[in-house]
Amino acid sequence: MKRKTPAQSRSVISDMMLPSQANPAGNVHGGEIMKIMDTCAGVAAMRHANCNVVTLRVDGMVFHSPVYVGQLVLCEAELTFVGRTSMEIRVTLKVEDLTMDEPARTALSAYFTFVALDHHGRPRPVPGLELETDQQRQAFEQGQQRYQTYKAMQRTDR
Amino acid sequence: MKRKTPAQSRSVISDMMLPSQANPAGNVHGGEIMKIMDTCAGVAAMRHANCNVVTLRVDGMVFHSPVYVGQLVLCEAELTFVGRTSMEIRVTLKVEDLTMDEPARTALSAYFTFVALDHHGRPRPVPGLELETDQQRQAFEQGQQRYQTYKAMQRTDR
Amino acid sequence: MKRKTPAQSRSVISDMMLPSQANPAGNVHGGEIMKIMDTCAGVAAMRHANCNVVTLRVDGMVFHSPVYVGQLVLCEAELTFVGRTSMEIRVTLKVEDLTMDEPARTALSAYFTFVALDHHGRPRPVPGLELETDQQRQAFEQGQQRYQTYKAMQRTDR
Amino acid sequence: MKRKTPAQSRSVISDMMLPSQANPAGNVHGGEIMKIMDTCAGVAAMRHANCNVVTLRVDGMVFHSPVYVGQLVLCEAELTFVGRTSMEIRVTLKVEDLTMDEPARTALSAYFTFVALDHHGRPRPVPGLELETDQQRQAFEQGQQRYQTYKAMQRTDR
Amino acid sequence: MKRKTPAQSRSVISDMMLPSQANPAGNVHGGEIMKIMDTCAGVAAMRHANCNVVTLRVDGMVFHSPVYVGQLVLCEAELTFVGRTSMEIRVTLKVEDLTMDEPARTALSAYFTFVALDHHGRPRPVPGLELETDQQRQAFEQGQQRYQTYKAMQRTDR
Amino acid sequence: MKRKTPAQSRSVISDMMLPSQANPAGNVHGGEIMKIMDTCAGVAAMRHANCNVVTLRVDGMVFHSPVYVGQLVLCEAELTFVGRTSMEIRVTLKVEDLTMDEPARTALSAYFTFVALDHHGRPRPVPGLELETDQQRQAFEQGQQRYQTYKAMQRTDR
Repeated sequence: MKRKTPAQSRSVISDMMLPSQANPAGNVHGGEIMKIMDTCAGVAAMRHANCNVVTLRVDGMVFHSPVYVGQLVLCEAELTFVGRTSMEIRVTLKVEDLTMDEPARTALSAYFTFVALDHHGRPRPVPGLELETDQQRQAFEQGQQRYQTYKAMQRTDR
Repeated sequence: MKRKTPAQSRSVISDMMLPSQANPAGNVHGGEIMKIMDTCAGVAAMRHANCNVVTLRVDGMVFHSPVYVGQLVLCEAELTFVGRTSMEIRVTLKVEDLTMDEPARTALSAYFTFVALDHHGRPRPVPGLELETDQQRQAFEQGQQRYQTYKAMQRTDR
Repeated sequence: MKRKTPAQSRSVISDMMLPSQANPAGNVHGGEIMKIMDTCAGVAAMRHANCNVVTLRVDGMVFHSPVYVGQLVLCEAELTFVGRTSMEIRVTLKVEDLTMDEPARTALSAYFTFVALDHHGRPRPVPGLELETDQQRQAFEQGQQRYQTYKAMQRTDR
Repeated sequence: MKRKTPAQSRSVISDMMLPSQANPAGNVHGGEIMKIMDTCAGVAAMRHANCNVVTLRVDGMVFHSPVYVGQLVLCEAELTFVGRTSMEIRVTLKVEDLTMDEPARTALSAYFTFVALDHHGRPRPVPGLELETDQQRQAFEQGQQRYQTYKAMQRTDR
Repeated sequence: MKRKTPAQSRSVISDMMLPSQANPAGNVHGGEIMKIMDTCAGVAAMRHANCNVVTLRVDGMVFHSPVYVGQLVLCEAELTFVGRTSMEIRVTLKVEDLTMDEPARTALSAYFTFVALDHHGRPRPVPGLELETDQQRQAFEQGQQRYQTYKAMQRTDR
Repeated sequence: MKRKTPAQSRSVISDMMLPSQANPAGNVHGGEIMKIMDTCAGVAAMRHANCNVVTLRVDGMVFHSPVYVGQLVLCEAELTFVGRTSMEIRVTLKVEDLTMDEPARTALSAYFTFVALDHHGRPRPVPGLELETDQQRQAFEQGQQRYQTYKAMQRTDR
C-alpha cells in the first residue's frame, strides 16, 4: 500500500447552525458539535483508507468557546498518526459570524481515532503516513505516545 | 459602501449525506439538496452584505446526476450579479465517493437571488461587485439580463 | 398508455410549520419550503406516471412573502406539460394564519420538472396530458416553450 | 360568539412518509403517525376557536393497518363535540400508494380533545357547534357521552 | 411459554426535551410526547414477547400538565393485561425540572395495546402474565374489561 | 453549599435507536451516541449544581462495540470529581437487544467535564462531593489527577 501525506486526506465539513440544533439554553447542543467533528474525522479517515471506518476513541476534546445558532461552523480534520489498522485524526472546529467582518475563531479541538474495516467488518491495514513537515513529525510522535499509552492501559485492564 | 470581489464572499458548505436525508427510493431527497444549496447561497450573500438576507428567487436549478447516501457533498456559492438590494449567486453542488480515489463530480447547479434586509426587515443596499476576471464580467452580464427579464415580467404581471 | 387530465394527478401537501424548520432568523428555512414543494411536485408526477420519479429541474421559483413558524402551509401541484418521459409541474404554496379568520395567501410558486423511471432507473414514457380548459392549454404551450428552450440550451452547452 | 359548523374548521394534513420517520422494523413509527394526527386535530381546533390550543385527551385511537415509508398520508380532522372550553375532534388517517391506481384506505382513527387557551394560558370559551346533518348530530351525542363519562371519572378520582 | 411478571418487562425511556421538539407555542409538541410513550410501551411489549410488535390501540391518554423544553422526561411502561397475542401496557410520563430540587410530577398517562408479530408479520401468542400484587390483579381485570368492550365493539361495527 | 453524594445526581437517559440516527453504513452514527452521552452527563451535572451547565471537555471516550438500529440504549452518568466550578462525570452507555433475553452490554464509556454557570453565563461554585464508597474515593483521586494534568497543560499552552 502506497503511503499518503496528511494533506491527501485533509477534510473540511462546514454548515450553518440552525435552531433545530440548539440545546434548551439556546446555544448549539454540545452533542450536535461532536456529531459534526465525528463526521469530519470519519471523512478524513475514509479518504486515507478508502474503505469503511468506525470511531474507536475520542480524546482531549476541549470546548474553548460556545457555538451559537446562526454561526457558520468550519470543521477541519487531518491525520496525525496511523497504526497498522487505526488512524488518529486531529479535528479543529472554528466558528464565524457572517454579519461581522471578522476571522473565524477556534471553538473546539479533539483527537479522534478510527479503525479501517474490510467487507466483513474486521480491522484491515491502512496506508502509512508520509510526513512532510516538522510539525507533522512532532504530531506523529505525540500520537504514537497516546497510542502506546492506550495499548498499555488495555493490557492493564485485562 | 466599498465594493467587494466575488472571491471575498465565495462560500463552501460540505457534509456527508446520511440515511435521515433519504427519499423513499433510498437516494438523497431532492429537497434536502435544495436546502443545502439555499444555505450555501445565503452564506455567500451574508458575507457580501454583512447583514440578514432572504431568498427571493431560484432559477435554472438542474439535477445533473443523483446524490446517494454516504457521499460527501461539496456545495460552492459565488456572487455573479448585484442589483441595488439584491444579489444573484451561482451555486454548484459536487459529490464525492470517499471509498474511491476519484475526483468530485458536479451533481447540481442553480442561480439563487437573495435580498439584503435591515433591522426592520426592509430591503437595504448592498456593496457593488468588483469584477476581476473576464469570466466574472460575462457572468455579471448574464445575471443582469436575468434580472431585467424578471423585472419586466413583474411589470407585465401587474 | 391512456392520457390523463391534470385534475387526475393534482396533489396537495399540507402541514403546520414547526420551530425545528426555522432558520437562524426565526422564519421557516427557505430550504424546508423547497423540500415541501419538491415532495408535492413529486406526488403529482407519481400520480400521473404511476412509477418512481426524480427531480430534473426547478425554474422560476419566486418567494412572494416569508413563511412563519406556526403557519399552516398548503402546497398544490398540477401538471402543466409532459414530454415523452418528463413532466412539468406548477407548484403553488399558500400559507394560512389559524388564529385569524383570513384566507390563505400565496407565498411561493415554481415550475418543477420530473422524469419517470423504470425499475432499472432509466427514463420511461409517461401518459399524455388530456387538456380540459383554455388555461391548461395556455400553460401547456408555455411549458413546451420552456422545454424547448432548455433542450436547445443543452445542445449549445456541448 | 357566533356558532360555527364542523365544515368551517374541517382540516387536512398530508405528507409523504420518509425513511427518517421509520421505526427499526422499517415501517412508519407509530409515534410519527400520532404526531401527524395531533397536528391535524390541533389545526381544526385552532380554526374553530381562532386561538392557541392544547391537547387534553386522546381516546379510541385504533391502528387498522400499518403505514409504510413512501406512502402518501392524508389526515382529516372534524369537530364532533364542543364543551364550554374544550373541543372533541374525530381524526381519520388514510394512506395511498402512488405507484398504484387505487383509492386511499383508512389506516387509523381517533378522538382528540383540545382546550382553547387565552393569552395567559387559561381555558377560554369556544364558539358553539352548528350541526347540519344527522350524522353530525349523532356524533355530537356520542361525544357528549364521552365528555360526561370523563367528567364523572375525574370526580371519582378525587 | 413461561409466564412472566409485569416487573420483568417494566421499561423506562428518559430524555431531555430539546427546542427541536417544540410546537409553535414553544412547549413540547404533543405528538413528540406521544412518540416517546409509544416507544416506551413498545419496549415493554418487546421485553415481554421477545419479538417484533406493533401498536394496535391507544386509549385514555390524558395530558395532566404541559411539558416544557429543557425538562427531563421519565416515561415508564408496565404490562397490565395480556390476551392471546395482544398486550395492554400502562404508560406514565413524568417531568422533572433539573434546576429545581423537586420530585418529578406526572404529566401524562395512557393505555397502549400492542400485538406480537412472527417473522411473517402475523400475530403470534405471547407469554401469560404472572400477577404478583393486588394492584396488578385489579389492573388486569380492568384491562380485560377494556379488551372485551373493544372486541364487542368490533363485532358491532361489522 | 451543602455537599451532595454521587448517588444524588446519578442520571439515566434511555431510548430506542431509530433509522433516522444511522450512519451510511447502517449502524448508529457515532455522533448520535456522543449526543446522548453529552445529554446524560449534562443531566447529572445539572442535578448536582441545580443551574445551567456547559460541556468543557470530553476525555477517554472508548467505543467498545458498535450500536445498532433497534437496540435499546441505556446511558448512565455519575459524578467522579468536582473542582470549584467544574464537575467530572463518568458516562457509561449500554445496549440491549429486546428480542433476546440477554443482559445489556457496555458499548461506550467516557469522562465529561462540565462547568456550572450563573445567570450571566459566568462560572459559579458547585457543591462539594460527599464520597460514600472506596470506589468513589478512588475515582475522585483519578479525576483530580486528570484535572491537575489538564490545568498544567493549559499553563504550558500559554
